[in-house]
Amino acid sequence: MAKRLGKQTYALEKPIHIISTATIVGEKEKNGPLKAYFEHCTEDDMMGEKTFEKAERKMMESCIDLVLEKAHITEQDIDLLIGGDLLNQLVTMNYSARSLNVPFLGVYGACSTMSESLAIAACLLDAGVGEIITCATGSHFSTAERQFRTPLELGNQRQTYSQWTVTGMGSCILSCKGKGPCVRMVTFGKVTDYGIKDIANMGAAMAPAAMDTLYTFFQDTKTEPKDYDLILSGDLGKLGSDILKDLMREKGYILEENYEDCGHMIYSASQKTFQGGSGTGCSASVFCSYVYKKLCNKQFKKIIFMATGALMSTVTNQQGDSIPGIAHLVVIENSSVAK
Amino acid sequence: MAKRLGKQTYALEKPIHIISTATIVGEKEKNGPLKAYFEHCTEDDMMGEKTFEKAERKMMESCIDLVLEKAHITEQDIDLLIGGDLLNQLVTMNYSARSLNVPFLGVYGACSTMSESLAIAACLLDAGVGEIITCATGSHFSTAERQFRTPLELGNQRQTYSQWTVTGMGSCILSCKGKGPCVRMVTFGKVTDYGIKDIANMGAAMAPAAMDTLYTFFQDTKTEPKDYDLILSGDLGKLGSDILKDLMREKGYILEENYEDCGHMIYSASQKTFQGGSGTGCSASVFCSYVYKKLCNKQFKKIIFMATGALMSTVTNQQGDSIPGIAHLVVIENSSVAK
Repeated sequence: MAKRLGKQTYALEKPIHIISTATIVGEKEKNGPLKAYFEHCTEDDMMGEKTFEKAERKMMESCIDLVLEKAHITEQDIDLLIGGDLLNQLVTMNYSARSLNVPFLGVYGACSTMSESLAIAACLLDAGVGEIITCATGSHFSTAERQFRTPLELGNQRQTYSQWTVTGMGSCILSCKGKGPCVRMVTFGKVTDYGIKDIANMGAAMAPAAMDTLYTFFQDTKTEPKDYDLILSGDLGKLGSDILKDLMREKGYILEENYEDCGHMIYSASQKTFQGGSGTGCSASVFCSYVYKKLCNKQFKKIIFMATGALMSTVTNQQGDSIPGIAHLVVIENSSVAK
Repeated sequence: MAKRLGKQTYALEKPIHIISTATIVGEKEKNGPLKAYFEHCTEDDMMGEKTFEKAERKMMESCIDLVLEKAHITEQDIDLLIGGDLLNQLVTMNYSARSLNVPFLGVYGACSTMSESLAIAACLLDAGVGEIITCATGSHFSTAERQFRTPLELGNQRQTYSQWTVTGMGSCILSCKGKGPCVRMVTFGKVTDYGIKDIANMGAAMAPAAMDTLYTFFQDTKTEPKDYDLILSGDLGKLGSDILKDLMREKGYILEENYEDCGHMIYSASQKTFQGGSGTGCSASVFCSYVYKKLCNKQFKKIIFMATGALMSTVTNQQGDSIPGIAHLVVIENSSVAK
């Protein structure tokens, strides 16, 4: 039984191990600061397919195959697959799930989908629903840009406050048995909207939701930023991270050196992505590589992983709506040091 | 702790009561065979808004308000809201969730979203994650048609094997405390694809997934169709239901008088919807009105509710992909007769 802490946070009873992770990224991501952590990279972002959408799907299928291989299990061993992506009707995940003979739950939290999936998976495993659950999410620059913004061929100039959609996939396997870092707590976020209407300004749209979830989590658990080796937000980018720091400071919490953002980490300034990375694949690929490895080798003992999502569509944007955000949070500890 | 039965089915430990439901439907639905069960109907399918999408959102917000009112609780009492809809990026649910100060999980299973939400909610409550969870889903004819098919103004002729997207919303409140029919078991479905490519032929696309889930459930639980007062599929429509019956017969299970389909029930032949209703709102509105009332007054003691979803997008369709389907199943018993 999960134990409720405060308003929105639940401490899991069982240790839910992340027994394996896998990541596949594109060439631009492989050339960024995290190159040492990205094991698998595709030089051809078409993956030999005829369309970007089919390429994205093939990357996702490969990423799930890879995590099964790394965990030395087969699809027969998986009790449930949970995940989603940015494409309309989650077609990347739905069609990837078709290639596996596994029960599937589609979830959508835009770029927060990895932490949403992890949180649901951990709660279900704690409840005895399955013994092995796979979570997977990802995004592709070329499908997201043409779906959400403009045809790639237009070559539109990008705003300096914009972010770059990551071409990358992340998958992980959770189990109440086995070894590996453990999901210990989850906080489900609320939809929060401060009225940002500019779809190039994702960081500003998502920062208030990140603040709401992180503030609630600290209040619920009576902990402070210094209690964690890493506080990692999803893909706020440089600008969004600065806004989050400001908003948290107003609430009395100072985010310092142990705070980072996946969007801010994944590209270097010379890669001209302006505020950094975004997309479901941003937090998924950073979490499933850099973060997981540092948890496994105990450079991190206890971290907060909070992916953030902007929940608009092209239709709501064209109809004048502002952009709501959401952020779901999980606390992960290295099992050997868990209290 | 949930108890696993067979491959994909879980029996919940606690009785998870559905303490209240609410439905709002459009005029066409109100004029169908279930009119006595639909308490709330809107005569203006624009809901006083400027766009169909904003109308759909307003119907959803009203439906959630209504279920809270009927349960005599406020949004403060809700621990989690779970739901989704058919619009790209689930904007109906995401924006409706924005109007509530409640943690939110967006899920997507196309027209299977109501049973997906109920299954997740029941498992989370069983695990001690929250005490009160609201599930909500819905659809609107005019938004779905123009997003998935053609502009309404074209007035295209419809195929005789097509279905009509329901304008309707359904919401319900689940709790481990209180009274009302109980969710007892859940079966998470697999993505299944028999190669149907015609987006007007939803029933044929979804029937194989419905068969897969229902057959697995009977095998997992060692029960038979006659053990249930009602076996209700989501929105296969007349043609899809007939295909499901054929597929189940091949597997050795005969679906007879106690089998029905929400899509088949919601319109009469004179309403010219051909194979019947479809859309997330179809199974949601039939379940939250007709089925729930008959469970409460004990006309039904034990039922299977299995909503079905077709997981394509316009992009996958245009790129030549076939249509995968999924079906999630919940067993609901009237608490006073539950074993």
